Amino acid sequence: MRMVDIIQNKRNGNSLSDEEIKYFVRGYTDGNIPDYQVSSLLMAIYFQGMDERETATLTQAMVDSGETIDLSAINGHKVDKHSTGGVGDKITFITGPLVASVGVPVAKMSGRGLGHTGGTIDKLESISGFDVEMTKEQFISNVNQFKLAVAGQTGNLAPADKKLYALRDVTATVDSIPLIAGSIMSKKLASGADSIVLDVKTGTGAFMKTLEDSQALAEEMVKIGNNLGRNTVAVISDMNQPLGYEIGNANEVREAMEVLQGKDIPDLKQLGLELAAHMTVLAEVFNDYETAYQELEKNLHNGKAFQAFRSFIQAQGGDVQQIDHPETLPTSAYHVEVMATRDGFVTAIDAESIGIAAMYLGAGRATKEDVIQHGVGITLKKKIGDKVGPGEAIAILHSDDEHPTDSIQKVQEAFEIGKTQPTTNPLIYKVIR
Amino acid sequence: MRMVDIIQNKRNGNSLSDEEIKYFVRGYTDGNIPDYQVSSLLMAIYFQGMDERETATLTQAMVDSGETIDLSAINGHKVDKHSTGGVGDKITFITGPLVASVGVPVAKMSGRGLGHTGGTIDKLESISGFDVEMTKEQFISNVNQFKLAVAGQTGNLAPADKKLYALRDVTATVDSIPLIAGSIMSKKLASGADSIVLDVKTGTGAFMKTLEDSQALAEEMVKIGNNLGRNTVAVISDMNQPLGYEIGNANEVREAMEVLQGKDIPDLKQLGLELAAHMTVLAEVFNDYETAYQELEKNLHNGKAFQAFRSFIQAQGGDVQQIDHPETLPTSAYHVEVMATRDGFVTAIDAESIGIAAMYLGAGRATKEDVIQHGVGITLKKKIGDKVGPGEAIAILHSDDEHPTDSIQKVQEAFEIGKTQPTTNPLIYKVIR
Repeated sequence: MRMVDIIQNKRNGNSLSDEEIKYFVRGYTDGNIPDYQVSSLLMAIYFQGMDERETATLTQAMVDSGETIDLSAINGHKVDKHSTGGVGDKITFITGPLVASVGVPVAKMSGRGLGHTGGTIDKLESISGFDVEMTKEQFISNVNQFKLAVAGQTGNLAPADKKLYALRDVTATVDSIPLIAGSIMSKKLASGADSIVLDVKTGTGAFMKTLEDSQALAEEMVKIGNNLGRNTVAVISDMNQPLGYEIGNANEVREAMEVLQGKDIPDLKQLGLELAAHMTVLAEVFNDYETAYQELEKNLHNGKAFQAFRSFIQAQGGDVQQIDHPETLPTSAYHVEVMATRDGFVTAIDAESIGIAAMYLGAGRATKEDVIQHGVGITLKKKIGDKVGPGEAIAILHSDDEHPTDSIQKVQEAFEIGKTQPTTNPLIYKVIR
Repeated sequence: MRMVDIIQNKRNGNSLSDEEIKYFVRGYTDGNIPDYQVSSLLMAIYFQGMDERETATLTQAMVDSGETIDLSAINGHKVDKHSTGGVGDKITFITGPLVASVGVPVAKMSGRGLGHTGGTIDKLESISGFDVEMTKEQFISNVNQFKLAVAGQTGNLAPADKKLYALRDVTATVDSIPLIAGSIMSKKLASGADSIVLDVKTGTGAFMKTLEDSQALAEEMVKIGNNLGRNTVAVISDMNQPLGYEIGNANEVREAMEVLQGKDIPDLKQLGLELAAHMTVLAEVFNDYETAYQELEKNLHNGKAFQAFRSFIQAQGGDVQQIDHPETLPTSAYHVEVMATRDGFVTAIDAESIGIAAMYLGAGRATKEDVIQHGVGITLKKKIGDKVGPGEAIAILHSDDEHPTDSIQKVQEAFEIGKTQPTTNPLIYKVIR
């Protein structure tokens, strides 16, 4: 088998055989096939696509390129949730405790990436003492006991994906739906869950800007999961503005806790319940989505969901004083109001700009060396559809700098204010299974 | 400027700016842009193409990446001829002396590549003593005196093309018309001729198998030449069977000499005159093609063309005894007849298979280390349309091996013999200027 023939095959629009796909993934991981051949194959895939079988084979080959996590020592049906990423996305802190509260085990493995705000682990580390370093045995024991644990990603999961992603990033071959789907799913599959719920974001603040692309990605991922023996459901949800009102780290944890204690923050509550409902149906705790939603919603009000969160934090060394008194979580030196530049109705909030403004404040990492400031962040005072009076604040910046000029400007630019009240987008566009 | 943005631009179907094209050609030549980014750009070009301006800019950038040959010390209008390559193509040995015989200077630079038979220089080296190593001054003086000289390619011409070609070869990005056209033209332009005549082959034995592709390539090259200040004409000629009857090295020189002495070998004579006529019209020696053709044809019969060849060989140290007695040129130990496997009419001769059969005999190079046997080769006894009687020979193998089994089989496979006489292809399909 010669790599140049594989490239030519794909270039000419043919389907690659399973052997060809395995050959190139193995060869690339081993360093026997050079970057320059793989990048031209990736560009050919960008143009010619991959069919359902090819995409499943590619995903499995990436899983097989490294270690996989064995969760069989955990009792019950393990369900994982994955979000394609958005601004203000603290949904994991809502769905995790929710499904744990009805006995479904959630064994979450998470990394620390670059981003406008921290990742799941960074945000949880706002709570003093909270620790994700633990042995595999401890991790499994915690999940068995508390139904929820979060560990730092250890082991060499899907190294082929890591290498391919780095190459795609510098060769303009990121935007290929089969490659994106395979990349996401390879990591999920290597993490060992039995079923997977995908939160696919769509809109200006999402990786996929159009509903059409988001749906294509969702369908591709669901097919991969189902073809590789995992029940998979995808929910397409709106990312045309940040989720909830808080963007940062400690403030996002605080907002999630409010939802877990029954506060009605509409988008967070609805999306959290929706995703958790699908997770618990896949875990066969409930027979249907409606029942699941109703039962889970009860646990937001009866304290069970919050209790699941509290126990999980305590089990991993977190200071429960801070959980019980969220006002003691880290905060910033200054709280700076951002004023509207005109009055009217909020017609759009560019989530990406809000994210960048938060990063300017120190909430995220632009390079691996950056240190996250857990107390800084942004609180939105207005969301799409809200009326803005003259001189009213649209956001508060939690800042360690008294004059965060760049962030103020960025937030002002992010808000579009018009004369008439806009129609709002639905929160959930579609469920694909 | 970032290479990843250039790749993405092309991937999205945009035209690259002149600055972007120069940036990537310079960066790649200098080693500042890695192979893996260039190969993905090449694949994007394969799919999205390049417009006329982009292709001209690419070609000029490849010329500018290295040295260019200054032929200004040669008197008169220098015309170069280039063939896209075929089997039995000894046309250079006919056009060169022909145009020299009417005073048009031909300063030919040639390399030694891999191929079924040797290249121009290898073939000429069948003549004992013939030498292509000379100083630049000698070369120019020879052209001024004899109107024809052939030198081994020295200097670092279009190194960007060399590097890009090597990359294309292993990344399935050879078959892109703008890239092929740019590659050929960059070498021609760096070689310093004032005008260029292109012999673009079409058919089963050519790089371009269809007339459509050949025409597209020819048009692209003519545009590049004209856009970069060289009058350029392309002739599309048939390569559905080898040119002439001889395939090899010494035997090809011998056959060309017969044409130069007035022998009517139809395809060689006609194509040689046609190309030479265009060359002399571009050099403004004749006003029109018809006059040029007629005048040049006279020089095949009055000895002037042959004399031009003889003087050129002599000037470069070649043994004129061999020119005057071509039977003393190198030959092989054995001459093995290949019999037809059935009788009827020759309907097709796969030129590539004939080339491979010649290479098996030792006429070419599969690797750089191979040594060419000047005396071996193939003489076709039948061409398309010829009648083949029972047990008649279709070819003679000039071989140093008494039983060249592989070559015999390859030649037999190359001949298709049918019941009815086929219509023959035209020799010249089209002239593009």
